[in-house]
Amino acid sequence: ALMSAPNALPSARDALLFTPGPLTTSLSVKQAMLHDAGSWHCEFNAVVANIRERLLKLAGLSRENGWEVILLQGSGTFGVEAVFQTCVPPDGNVAVFTNGAYGERIVQMLQCARIPHVVAHAAEEATLDPAALEDLLANEPTISHVAVVHCETTTGILNPIEAIGRVVKRHGKLLVVDAMSSFAGMPIDFAAAGIDFLISSANKCIEGVPGFSFVFAKRPLLLASEGWARSLSLDLLGQWKGFEKNGQFRYTPPTHALLAFDQALSELEAEGGIVARSERYRRNHETLLAGMARLGFRPLLAPGVQSHIITAFRYPDAGFDFAAFYGKLSERGFIIYPGKLTQVDTFRVGNIGRLLPQDLEQLVAAIAAVLAEMGIPAKPASNA
Amino acid sequence: ALMSAPNALPSARDALLFTPGPLTTSLSVKQAMLHDAGSWHCEFNAVVANIRERLLKLAGLSRENGWEVILLQGSGTFGVEAVFQTCVPPDGNVAVFTNGAYGERIVQMLQCARIPHVVAHAAEEATLDPAALEDLLANEPTISHVAVVHCETTTGILNPIEAIGRVVKRHGKLLVVDAMSSFAGMPIDFAAAGIDFLISSANKCIEGVPGFSFVFAKRPLLLASEGWARSLSLDLLGQWKGFEKNGQFRYTPPTHALLAFDQALSELEAEGGIVARSERYRRNHETLLAGMARLGFRPLLAPGVQSHIITAFRYPDAGFDFAAFYGKLSERGFIIYPGKLTQVDTFRVGNIGRLLPQDLEQLVAAIAAVLAEMGIPAKPASNA
Repeated sequence: ALMSAPNALPSARDALLFTPGPLTTSLSVKQAMLHDAGSWHCEFNAVVANIRERLLKLAGLSRENGWEVILLQGSGTFGVEAVFQTCVPPDGNVAVFTNGAYGERIVQMLQCARIPHVVAHAAEEATLDPAALEDLLANEPTISHVAVVHCETTTGILNPIEAIGRVVKRHGKLLVVDAMSSFAGMPIDFAAAGIDFLISSANKCIEGVPGFSFVFAKRPLLLASEGWARSLSLDLLGQWKGFEKNGQFRYTPPTHALLAFDQALSELEAEGGIVARSERYRRNHETLLAGMARLGFRPLLAPGVQSHIITAFRYPDAGFDFAAFYGKLSERGFIIYPGKLTQVDTFRVGNIGRLLPQDLEQLVAAIAAVLAEMGIPAKPASNA
Repeated sequence: ALMSAPNALPSARDALLFTPGPLTTSLSVKQAMLHDAGSWHCEFNAVVANIRERLLKLAGLSRENGWEVILLQGSGTFGVEAVFQTCVPPDGNVAVFTNGAYGERIVQMLQCARIPHVVAHAAEEATLDPAALEDLLANEPTISHVAVVHCETTTGILNPIEAIGRVVKRHGKLLVVDAMSSFAGMPIDFAAAGIDFLISSANKCIEGVPGFSFVFAKRPLLLASEGWARSLSLDLLGQWKGFEKNGQFRYTPPTHALLAFDQALSELEAEGGIVARSERYRRNHETLLAGMARLGFRPLLAPGVQSHIITAFRYPDAGFDFAAFYGKLSERGFIIYPGKLTQVDTFRVGNIGRLLPQDLEQLVAAIAAVLAEMGIPAKPASNA
C-alpha cells in the first residue's frame, strides 16, 4: 500500500485501481521511469518522435493524409482546452452537446476563455440525439465547431459520434471529440465520424501514467490558427511548431511519463492493438456486470448505451453508507470510484488499466464480503 | 543509457545530466514512482496535503501569515502563465523587467493572453538595475504588476530581487518572481524582496521529476482574482478552491511525479534543507569553475553576478564544433546543455540535481579527454 495506518501491516502489493484513470499500470511501464532523460538530448527526442509516429498509426492516421498529433503537458483537460484556446477563430462559435460533467467542463473552459458558445444539454442517462443537434445547427448558423464527449465517464455512456459527425458534416462544421477515456479502448473511425480534432491522455486506455495529453488535428486547421492562441502554454500550433523545428517540447516535458508511455505503447502493440485491448476491457466489463448482478447491484444505464470503459451502479438501498463501503474495499486492496451524478446516487467501477477478468472477479468477491460485513443482504436481481 | 546504438554496449548506469532540469534525481526519488495512486483516494490526498504544508514551511511561509501554495499540472511555464491568466485584473498592466529568454517568455505569454504590458529589456550579461525600474514605474502609473526572473538560466545570472522588490514596493505595485531554477537552491527572503507571487517547479532544486509547478501566492490577492481567469486549466484560484474543497486536484494530477516529489522533499530535509543544498550546489559550481579554468574555458559572466545554479562558458575558439563536443561527452555519460544567447557562442553546465563535487570533477576530466580527442589544446587561463 502507498501509505498505511501506523499499526497496520502494509499489503505486499499495491491496491488495484478500478478507476477511470490514473489507473493501474504494469510494473514494466512504471519501471521505464527509473531513468532520468535530458529533454534536449537526441535519445529522448527520438523517443518523442517515435511516440508521435506510433500514436498516428494507432489512430489509423498519417501525416501524408494531413494529420498531426501534438503532445501537451498537463492533464487531459489541458489538451481539450488547448484545442479551443488555439483553433477557434476570434469570430468562432462553439456548440457544446453535453450529457455529463465532462461536456459541462468544456462549457466552463469556453466561458473562461470568453469564446462564444451555445450549449445543448441532454439527459445524463441517454445518449446524445443527433436529431437535437440537427435542430441546433439549423437554427444557429454562426456555429463554427461542435464539441462532444465520446465516452462520458460521468455515467459511462457511449455517445454515437458517427451519427453526430454526419450531422456536423452535413452542416459544414468542425467536430471536436473529447475521447479521453475511449481512445485505444475501442476502435474509432476518424473518417466515418468526420473528426477534425480528437483529444485523449496518457493515463487512460494506453495505460501510461498521467502527465500529458495528446491531440490529433488536421494539419490545415492547425496551420489556419496562426495568431489565434489566447494562451502561450496551451498554444497547440506553437507546440507543434516546436516539435517540427527540433523535435523538442517547447517547455519542459514530463520526461518520465513519456518514457513510461513509450513502454505502454509497446505493451499495447504486444497485446494485439486496440481490437485486442477493447476485447479485454469488454470481458472485464461483462465479468463485472455478471458478478454485480449476482449481488443485486443494478447498473445505472441500459445495456445498449453502456460503454465497457466504466460502469455506474445504483446504491443498493437508500441508507447505503458509501464511505464505509469504499473504505472497507480499499482496505482489501480494491479502489473504486465515487459517482458524479447530481440526481441519482451511484458509484463507479472502471474496467480499464492493467486489469484482467480475474481481477474483476476478485473485486466482486471483495464486494460480497464487504456487504456481509456491513449487514447488507445480497439481493440477486430477478431475470425480469 | 536510455537508448543505445544497435552495436554499442550500453553503459551500466545512466548518463549524468548537467542541465537546468529535468535533471539527475536520486534512484529513491524515481523508485517512489513504482506505485499507482488513485487520485481520489485518501492516501494520495494526504500526500498532496503534506507536500503543500512542506513547501510553505520550506519557503518560510505559513497559511497563518496569509500565504498559500498551489500545485499546477504542466511545466514551470504553465505555473508562471497561470499567475498572469488568473491574477491580473482586466485593467491591469504588467511591467516585465527582462535580461534573458525566460523574461522574454513572460512577454510572450502576456501577448497571447492580450494582457496589457510594458517591457524593459536589459543586457543579458548584467543584472537588472533597480534604477532603470524606478524610471519605468515613475513614468507608467498604470502598471499593476512587475515580473522578474530570479535566476535567468539563459546565462545563469542572478538578479537582485531584494533591491528590485524595494523599488516595486515603494511604488505600491505587486511583484511576481519566476524562481524556477533558484527556489530551494538558495535561501529566498519573501518579506525582504516584497514578493507577492513566486513560481517554481518540481524538477529543479527540489530534485523531483517534471510534471507540475507550484505557485506561492498571498491569499488576499488570490481571493481578489475571482472572475478574472482567462483559462480554466490555468485558473489558479479555481485550482486552490479544489484543494480547499476536498484536498484534490480539480483535474487528473501527475500522481507519480507527486509521489516522487514527496520523496524528494524528504531527501532535501535529510540533506539539511535549503542552506545545505545551496552549499552543495556552490561547491559543485566552484569545482566546475576551477576545473574549466585549468582547461582554458572562460565563463560568460563576471563572478559577482554569476549564480551557482548553471554556468555559461564561451566557446574555446571560433571554429569550435559544439555538436561533436556534446556528442563525445554524452557517449562518455555526461549530458551538458547548449547555449541560448543570440550574441555570444556559449554552452551551459548545470550544477543542480543529485550531483556531487566529484561528479563535476569527472565531467571536467571527460571534457579534457574530449578536447584532446578533438585536437583542441587546453589553454589554462592566466591569472591576469
